[in-house]
Amino acid sequence: MNRPIVETCLSPALLHLFDTEHTIVVIIDIFRATSTITTALANGAREIIPVADVNECITLKSLHPEYITAGERDGKVAPGLEYGNSPFEYPPAFIKDKTLALTTTNGTKLLHMVENADQIIIGSFLNLDAVSSYLIRQNKKVLLACAAWKDRVNKEDSLYAGAVATQLQEHFTIACDSTRLCMDLYEQSRRAPSLLDFLRDSNHYRRLSSFGLEKDMEFCTTPNQYQVVPRYNGHAIVMETMPAV
Amino acid sequence: MNRPIVETCLSPALLHLFDTEHTIVVIIDIFRATSTITTALANGAREIIPVADVNECITLKSLHPEYITAGERDGKVAPGLEYGNSPFEYPPAFIKDKTLALTTTNGTKLLHMVENADQIIIGSFLNLDAVSSYLIRQNKKVLLACAAWKDRVNKEDSLYAGAVATQLQEHFTIACDSTRLCMDLYEQSRRAPSLLDFLRDSNHYRRLSSFGLEKDMEFCTTPNQYQVVPRYNGHAIVMETMPAV
Repeated sequence: MNRPIVETCLSPALLHLFDTEHTIVVIIDIFRATSTITTALANGAREIIPVADVNECITLKSLHPEYITAGERDGKVAPGLEYGNSPFEYPPAFIKDKTLALTTTNGTKLLHMVENADQIIIGSFLNLDAVSSYLIRQNKKVLLACAAWKDRVNKEDSLYAGAVATQLQEHFTIACDSTRLCMDLYEQSRRAPSLLDFLRDSNHYRRLSSFGLEKDMEFCTTPNQYQVVPRYNGHAIVMETMPAV
Repeated sequence: MNRPIVETCLSPALLHLFDTEHTIVVIIDIFRATSTITTALANGAREIIPVADVNECITLKSLHPEYITAGERDGKVAPGLEYGNSPFEYPPAFIKDKTLALTTTNGTKLLHMVENADQIIIGSFLNLDAVSSYLIRQNKKVLLACAAWKDRVNKEDSLYAGAVATQLQEHFTIACDSTRLCMDLYEQSRRAPSLLDFLRDSNHYRRLSSFGLEKDMEFCTTPNQYQVVPRYNGHAIVMETMPAV
């Protein structure tokens, strides 16, 4: 049987090593861009426009005053923008049918770097099973692409790549050692009381804790809150219309 | 107590993210450059000159006919060179007091990329304890630098970084998530019958097996065969004169 392959890119600085043609690329930025995107769409947002930087976000707002602009720098809402990068800021009563223009340090940057992919979708623990099921049904080559932290490999994105690859392994060929590293990391995490507990010993946990964002991280590491698969259509991230199983 | 930090660079393509000033950089290319360098020096080689490519190796030989030239391409001795990249090719009776000019696909390339380091030393499972003890005694910032495979993260170099970091952890601060990933990988490996067994599920194992090099890999994953710490002096790799403990 000819299984499609799954590979993992641990940092945007390694993206050039991977051929993304005919590939479904899963963008991973657990703390917190892809978790917040998943939440906002599950809560009814019309679309999320990933924006490269704060200035572009401000320009978009001047052209489209109805847009909600969001982005943080150093754990605070960036000057000139309205909201931050916490999933808790986007409950249904607020975000339903709205367009969110979002800029983040790592996730949106990576998304814009990917070229020629067959599809670009958004992964987080919040929609772990939905993403894995979708990939298995699509039956195409997969690249799990970690946003990392300013190009440095991080534990939470690698852990999520390991979780997805573990769910895919019966249907795909594990094609690179990065994927194997992530799967071993995920296997190690099962010995911890929780994913969050496993991630306490990580750079990002320490950084976000210092901003008082423990609750955000607890939510972002809770699997399967939503059944959505966000997909980038070249302009905005929208809800994938799931094909019938 | 102010402990020095230990970081891990998983691929030469990430080296620019690390500041190597005042740092001891450990070059890691388990299959097989750093294992072969360790073996040749332990067996009495005078020095090993790491060479960027095959042509430079051939030029060196024309200038110094007494040098032994070595390097492989695709598992075979490269045309124009005399020997390969197997540790078994360098027993004491052959290599004692000789100068070896060695070119390899990944390890020698990485070594030449490192700038401004306080020291550059050579790590392999064959001298695992010697390297760890040396680093603990030096008490300086450490970068574990994996040669990887054509910039792709590999399992065997990451595993060795995890082994060293595990030995250092009581004396150093683990400063990056890459190091944590490697330590978790090493922890996972302890559940396998042997390091080699753990590495069977890796890209490099498959590649080298197809060249009939299983015995090489078995040797390269046998810890603590030698007590030497090879050190690059800017021109050649020589035996570090170990300070008294």
